[in-house]
Amino acid sequence: MSLLAIGSMAFDALETPYGKTDKIIGGSCTYISLSACYFTPNVNVVAVVGEDFPQEYIDMLTAKGVNLDGLQIKEGEKSFFWSGRYHNNMNSRDTLVTELNVLGTFDPVIPELYQDCQYLMLGNLTPMVQIQAIERLRNRPKLIVMDTMNFWMDVALEDLKRVIKMVDVLCINDEEARQLSGEYSLRVAAKKIVEMGPKTLIIKKGEHGALLFQEEKMFYCPALPLEDVFDPTGAGDTFVGGFIGYLAKTEDLSFDNMKRAIVYGSAMASFCVEKFGTERMLTLTEAEVTGRVQEFADLAHFKI
Amino acid sequence: MSLLAIGSMAFDALETPYGKTDKIIGGSCTYISLSACYFTPNVNVVAVVGEDFPQEYIDMLTAKGVNLDGLQIKEGEKSFFWSGRYHNNMNSRDTLVTELNVLGTFDPVIPELYQDCQYLMLGNLTPMVQIQAIERLRNRPKLIVMDTMNFWMDVALEDLKRVIKMVDVLCINDEEARQLSGEYSLRVAAKKIVEMGPKTLIIKKGEHGALLFQEEKMFYCPALPLEDVFDPTGAGDTFVGGFIGYLAKTEDLSFDNMKRAIVYGSAMASFCVEKFGTERMLTLTEAEVTGRVQEFADLAHFKI
Repeated sequence: MSLLAIGSMAFDALETPYGKTDKIIGGSCTYISLSACYFTPNVNVVAVVGEDFPQEYIDMLTAKGVNLDGLQIKEGEKSFFWSGRYHNNMNSRDTLVTELNVLGTFDPVIPELYQDCQYLMLGNLTPMVQIQAIERLRNRPKLIVMDTMNFWMDVALEDLKRVIKMVDVLCINDEEARQLSGEYSLRVAAKKIVEMGPKTLIIKKGEHGALLFQEEKMFYCPALPLEDVFDPTGAGDTFVGGFIGYLAKTEDLSFDNMKRAIVYGSAMASFCVEKFGTERMLTLTEAEVTGRVQEFADLAHFKI
Repeated sequence: MSLLAIGSMAFDALETPYGKTDKIIGGSCTYISLSACYFTPNVNVVAVVGEDFPQEYIDMLTAKGVNLDGLQIKEGEKSFFWSGRYHNNMNSRDTLVTELNVLGTFDPVIPELYQDCQYLMLGNLTPMVQIQAIERLRNRPKLIVMDTMNFWMDVALEDLKRVIKMVDVLCINDEEARQLSGEYSLRVAAKKIVEMGPKTLIIKKGEHGALLFQEEKMFYCPALPLEDVFDPTGAGDTFVGGFIGYLAKTEDLSFDNMKRAIVYGSAMASFCVEKFGTERMLTLTEAEVTGRVQEFADLAHFKI
């Protein structure tokens, strides 16, 4: 089933304890697409870049089967650029540079071809742009998943609450869940957030795994402990891209299938962090993904 | 099979966002015994208290079937006392008072009756006292599990390394595993620590669960997200008490059974934090424990 991903496509410059990169391809929509396209051949993108965005990156995504009809290329303008430095523990980072550039005036135009998309993934963006994207679809998709971040809770909380009401699945990290709900207990936080609108809540906990909440049901997918984490950039987007990609492939929105989708998303994210930027996602084979998912299954398996 | 627990019995005064207590019973050996005695009727204690230690606490443990022949009561002296205040997130705390008292000169005398114990649990103590305890047993127990803390890594690292070499299972938290190994990745840390001697390593991650490592095998037991955590004091001791208690009951030291022991230990710890001090552990029923273990099984269960 076709999937529409809306988010940023950008340049990142990264520094981790393992090394540093020049400007490389990044952005939520890039990671989401690269992860989702592993599961479904029908990934459509709405994003905006400047004329500095290299054709080779566009060709690379197209070669992966990603449809870029909805990619706006702004002549005479520059792409969004983010630069960050990760600390030794990889759990915290400093933002060195944020240049919004074309993203500052992003108008999410939906190509006619995309109007029948049944799975909508809203990457982290200004909540108002996320609302526009939903409103511009003639028919409500079967499933809307959104990602966001604490920044929007600080500067655009009312808009954020509006869009949260419109979606089926909200995906945020543990600190964001605490900030949004005002509750420290994630279980209580989940109850409060689900009351804000989304039927399903995913709380990402990085190296500690991910939680899935729906009504009274709860699932905890631990993260696979890795020997080396080279670069955490894009892990959250890769996770949610795998989650929605798996659902679009299987077309089963039951809680049991969402649990599997969380495991596949976690497996994809565990690859993403093994190399810089998108590098690892480009070489991923089916056997690797199947093997990694089995590692996740073995990791938490026990019989009482 | 009989179990010998060596550790502290003490007074704690606790302050959490939910309230505060006067001096109540605490200490690693208290929590270990109360947890382990749920599984096996044969729990023997070696510990030391002052004459201020109330008979009602001794009677309470005895009523639970805990053998206190090895409890030394020092006349004219005072019991170990610790007072702490937890921060709002319950993950960090300030120590307000530490009075070693009788613990400062603890000489772990093993009663003759205890000499055939097959399961030895070394609660957090001076490493030298842990070594003495092991050396005073005529026959090596079938299984030796030890707990420790970062404090001993700072002030008695060489002694600590000696005792670590002598045990089968080391149980520490994630920060301690990182400090002991000098590695941030818990998977790499586990490899290095296992090379120090213990065949099996448990890394406790509090609200994020617990990891079990043995040779190339790895198991991740997520923690059950709770609505309220009233008081985390004793959770780690309750966890490890449940772990060794379950093993002593089942007499099966396979990796698969150790996984189950981790789940039972986690379930016991999840009760411990629901009320102040040892309160919740005193009222625990079999149906409650079975139900909680089932919740853990449901929490992480999925089929690929």
